[in-house]
Amino acid sequence: MAKFMDVHRGMTGITADQLHEAHQADLALEEEESVHFERAWADPRSGTVYCLSEAPSADAVQRIHERAGHKADEIHEVPLTA
Amino acid sequence: MAKFMDVHRGMTGITADQLHEAHQADLALEEEESVHFERAWADPRSGTVYCLSEAPSADAVQRIHERAGHKADEIHEVPLTA
Repeated sequence: MAKFMDVHRGMTGITADQLHEAHQADLALEEEESVHFERAWADPRSGTVYCLSEAPSADAVQRIHERAGHKADEIHEVPLTA
Repeated sequence: MAKFMDVHRGMTGITADQLHEAHQADLALEEEESVHFERAWADPRSGTVYCLSEAPSADAVQRIHERAGHKADEIHEVPLTA
């Protein structure tokens, strides 16, 4: 298992409810790929959403996001933390 | 006070020690701008570093990063969290 940060763009105007709903959609599916989405942060002005997860691979993260209806634009493994 | 996610690029090959050192340099200065850097995550392969902070403004975050020697490429206020 490794840590990943993924980025979604084009979410301009996203609301707290929409972020919560999207995160719940990920959580409902995540076990099927042994992924766990830990946190998500959104900037409605630029439309950027960051998700932090623990997962076996970037592909597993993307499969959950795709099935939940919001494919990520970038996924980075982040092995280093401070 | 608000939450911010900032992004640094071009840090290809960054090591755990270098990330720790950069984060410590931020922590040593942060009080002067009432910023607090909570966490940082790095992807040495793509050279991307993400920092999560609580701060009065994006400018305050940038001033600390600049004085610590590593200006951010993007700073986003992230008022929404899940």
